Amino acid sequence: MIAITDPRIEEYLMRLAPEEDPYVQEMEQLARERRFPIVDRLVGRLLYLLTRLRQPQLVVELGSGFGYSTWWFARAISITGKVVMTDHDQENIDYARRIFQETGLADRIEFRVGNALTIGRDYDNIDLLFIDVDKQDYRQAAEIMLPRLAKNALIIADNALWYGRVAEGNDDPETRGIAEFNRFMFARRDFFTTILPLRDGVLLSYKYG
Amino acid sequence: MIAITDPRIEEYLMRLAPEEDPYVQEMEQLARERRFPIVDRLVGRLLYLLTRLRQPQLVVELGSGFGYSTWWFARAISITGKVVMTDHDQENIDYARRIFQETGLADRIEFRVGNALTIGRDYDNIDLLFIDVDKQDYRQAAEIMLPRLAKNALIIADNALWYGRVAEGNDDPETRGIAEFNRFMFARRDFFTTILPLRDGVLLSYKYG
Repeated sequence: MIAITDPRIEEYLMRLAPEEDPYVQEMEQLARERRFPIVDRLVGRLLYLLTRLRQPQLVVELGSGFGYSTWWFARAISITGKVVMTDHDQENIDYARRIFQETGLADRIEFRVGNALTIGRDYDNIDLLFIDVDKQDYRQAAEIMLPRLAKNALIIADNALWYGRVAEGNDDPETRGIAEFNRFMFARRDFFTTILPLRDGVLLSYKYG
Repeated sequence: MIAITDPRIEEYLMRLAPEEDPYVQEMEQLARERRFPIVDRLVGRLLYLLTRLRQPQLVVELGSGFGYSTWWFARAISITGKVVMTDHDQENIDYARRIFQETGLADRIEFRVGNALTIGRDYDNIDLLFIDVDKQDYRQAAEIMLPRLAKNALIIADNALWYGRVAEGNDDPETRGIAEFNRFMFARRDFFTTILPLRDGVLLSYKYG
């Protein structure tokens, strides 16, 4: 395993931008307690900034967990926008529903329980697609969803470096899944793709036209 | 000094996205030969993607060197857009002019020789501001340019981690300059600011309204 960012850098960045929102703090605390994998604060802030730049009307998340990434998207979209959150675990969705109702953001969110790859097929004209499903399924997720994207859509995929294992050339199914997905996206000439070495690697892909 | 990204990760990312453009290759070669500091390929690709998302009409670069970052901006803007490139060195500007004329992109670029902080004052309604001047001058650059930004402008500043020295708390003038600039931008409530630990640190700041 390769440490993608030096911990001293992470600490400096966290000090610069203390988060005052109690719900963000609660969700981060919950993730630590349950050892539940969430994108971290820095990735959350990047999601927020990219969403502001793209100004999507429809965000679809494949794999939302209990809603941490959803939170950053929901705060960044306009009041006419919508975020579809998906998770296979009813408890995660119930938790998110409570959080978003308390904060007045629930109107912007569609809560869906089930298989993300199935639910994703219900949507078209997606401006921003977030992928955080099982790592073996990334490429399949891309193949299903690419025809469902709007003009100039943005894809954001988490874990694109998979603890650095893709660079080390590991051969387990999850590493292979991520490596194949990366190759697939970079080979598409109708998208401009890059990976940011942030936390566990964030793939960004912009659709031409 | 802290290594911000593990070299194995960088290699993997470079392999994924081989650059075929001969001018990019030439400029990268020139930078290596002269040991001239340029943003690297990964940052270049990020500039490209952010520019596509923001769709700016006016990009102003404070500190362009011989035009490597300019190149990524110029390729990403629409044909009606304009990039202002600035450098104090006439030779850098002449080199860039030749490169951009050969590639047919010169119409999109304004070539300015002189002090970037002076030249910057000639522009208003800037959609995308790129800062890469002397590190002691970052905060002053921000103070001069903030009133000159368009609605929902994006600021991108290179070297926001200054080889990790801001995190180590070094006290030389350049590290102090960057640290003050970072604090200044993060304290502004009318901007949403974050730093990506990419290469030497890339500060991104989005203007609300």
